[in-house]
Amino acid sequence: MKFSSKIEKCGYSPIRKFYSYQVECEKQGKKIHHLNIGQPDIQTPRNFFTAVKDFDEKVVAYAPSPGIPELIGAIRRYYERIGVELSDSDIIITTGGSEALSMSFQCILDEGDELLAPEPLYSNYLTFTTMTGGKVVPIPTDPANGYRYAKRELLERYVTEKTRGLLITNPGNPTGVVLTKEEQQVIADFARDHGLFLIVDEVYREFVYNGQKLSSFGSFEGIEDNLIIVDSVSKRFSACGARVGALISRNKELIAHALKICQARLSVATLDQVGAAALYDTEESFFEEVRAEYKKRRDTVCEELGKIPGVSFDVPEGAFYLMASLPVDDTDRFQRWLFTDFETDGETVMFAPGDGFYRSPGLGKNEIRIAYVTNSDELRRSIRVLAEGIKRYNSL
Amino acid sequence: MKFSSKIEKCGYSPIRKFYSYQVECEKQGKKIHHLNIGQPDIQTPRNFFTAVKDFDEKVVAYAPSPGIPELIGAIRRYYERIGVELSDSDIIITTGGSEALSMSFQCILDEGDELLAPEPLYSNYLTFTTMTGGKVVPIPTDPANGYRYAKRELLERYVTEKTRGLLITNPGNPTGVVLTKEEQQVIADFARDHGLFLIVDEVYREFVYNGQKLSSFGSFEGIEDNLIIVDSVSKRFSACGARVGALISRNKELIAHALKICQARLSVATLDQVGAAALYDTEESFFEEVRAEYKKRRDTVCEELGKIPGVSFDVPEGAFYLMASLPVDDTDRFQRWLFTDFETDGETVMFAPGDGFYRSPGLGKNEIRIAYVTNSDELRRSIRVLAEGIKRYNSL
Repeated sequence: MKFSSKIEKCGYSPIRKFYSYQVECEKQGKKIHHLNIGQPDIQTPRNFFTAVKDFDEKVVAYAPSPGIPELIGAIRRYYERIGVELSDSDIIITTGGSEALSMSFQCILDEGDELLAPEPLYSNYLTFTTMTGGKVVPIPTDPANGYRYAKRELLERYVTEKTRGLLITNPGNPTGVVLTKEEQQVIADFARDHGLFLIVDEVYREFVYNGQKLSSFGSFEGIEDNLIIVDSVSKRFSACGARVGALISRNKELIAHALKICQARLSVATLDQVGAAALYDTEESFFEEVRAEYKKRRDTVCEELGKIPGVSFDVPEGAFYLMASLPVDDTDRFQRWLFTDFETDGETVMFAPGDGFYRSPGLGKNEIRIAYVTNSDELRRSIRVLAEGIKRYNSL
Repeated sequence: MKFSSKIEKCGYSPIRKFYSYQVECEKQGKKIHHLNIGQPDIQTPRNFFTAVKDFDEKVVAYAPSPGIPELIGAIRRYYERIGVELSDSDIIITTGGSEALSMSFQCILDEGDELLAPEPLYSNYLTFTTMTGGKVVPIPTDPANGYRYAKRELLERYVTEKTRGLLITNPGNPTGVVLTKEEQQVIADFARDHGLFLIVDEVYREFVYNGQKLSSFGSFEGIEDNLIIVDSVSKRFSACGARVGALISRNKELIAHALKICQARLSVATLDQVGAAALYDTEESFFEEVRAEYKKRRDTVCEELGKIPGVSFDVPEGAFYLMASLPVDDTDRFQRWLFTDFETDGETVMFAPGDGFYRSPGLGKNEIRIAYVTNSDELRRSIRVLAEGIKRYNSL
């Protein structure tokens, strides 16, 4: 049987591809420390569960294709609070930020079209773009320079006739880079001047640790037609499994096109939308506590990583990921070995190998992405297991 | 700004495109009788809500990409009961049957590839195939002949080098055709002989009204590599808003490819999977009652439609849809008029215009799809409002 060339080109997620190894390990009773997946252990605010439990319809019916009005209104008001004026019709509810991404790419990319994106990047961008026939053109960045990419001359170098947009994550996944307001203006000007879509994945908006006040690209003027904001309740409210996100744009034509896809896939899960709407009533103190907790976790990870000979990394400013270079030949092979041939006190560790976060072949082979989403004690132990793994792997 | 040629080609769903008209009508206090959407009013079995309310995790976490084991196991056992032996790894949980469809198409269709499908067809198949760059090649059917399409010589006529698969809905949406076992064998042989994927949308499996015992294509031998079953809890358990479906195949390569997409989109909503797993404990009597109720509804609709001069239709054998030809020039225009210029006792009616269910241009212009998913009294009134609408529209 013949499969599509597009799916043949796609790889497995570096974050999830070891799932079968994980299941096997757990069967053997080996404890796995998870540094691989951005699944926070922060409790989902109770209002989510309360709203879901209070749902008293007799039928779990389809929701409207663009989303339930309660949730759309809650998101509009949230944006108003952070200085972004939106209409309800600028907001489409999606099945996680993931669907907002794939829907955006489907609306703008044809076979051979190009989307610029700083590298390393969130690996799933590659699958979603590849499935449209389009491709990501990576903008190289340098950890020695803090992975910063918002430089006009750098971006200009990669623009071709085929370029349709620029895709960024801010705060960055997997790098933790947070753009300054000046850098955001560089990005906005670049997109506007070239008539490019500017797709900004801002799902980590609340997670900045150096006291910055992060502005949404939604508050920048002159890019109304260019801007597509990808948003989600997953990280903001630690509700990843709700699969509720949003595609936000003031470009009416884009929204009209996206609605065709929305109608075809019918709707987003009704109960989760009800729960998500309630999440937007969460008090501001929740974010302050969560931010303080993540800052502590980041510091713990950096402290412990700093003790491992040969490991290098840039201290992330936001989100909850960190890219690190390890003194091993191939982090993918190293991960397999950690599953099959390693344990220390019955424990092993799981990370996301770095090459999956690069589009450029050969890059990232000795890097890993760490998600610091468990508590500090657990993280400390995870990194120590990693350290022991590196030592033993290199003495084979 | 430039959009993709693929999205430009897509249309709006004939089932959902009038949503803004509907909202406007409701604002004006006009009551709308819904014949347009397959949203049953049957109560969702209580075990769904119980399971959701009993969920006591502190975090709404991501589920595994292929689905939660409890739900996969429940679906495997359900198939065992209907005579289809599956492994857990043959089953991938999807966000509704919709995602199983789009995922299947993404795995097998390249630019210009063809998927055969009897026409009229479920309109969203068109959007999902168009978004891959592939296209549906319609197999024409005739209402005078009960829309039957499982004839070898008919199917053979449309096979080209570009044909990758055959897509059918059984029981049929929008026609209500139910294949006989002999017809199913014709389809299976055809797919096997040509090495085509056979994508069978069997979400209406339980809804057959003439006492037939419907076999899943999963029980046919010799098509293990060809067959992709699209399934869903939406109609089976009247849980459309849960957005829980499944892609089922014994083709290991297909499953491996589909998992790349699953990993990229992360997971299906966790709580809904928990609820859906519980739905599979629903007693057989539920289906018997539901079947009896739908049979009654079908009979009511056919009785009332039969009274309208100039209306013709074929009595559906399964699912809960009916295609009817109306004595009007253009059902799309007629629907708009019903919203904006018509009412009888403050009421109007909404159906799905027929042309959206045809890929062939010009067909279906005087047809409509009716979903008989409300109770018999409501249906009777809906059809009478429709009858009054036709009368007045034609006397303009």
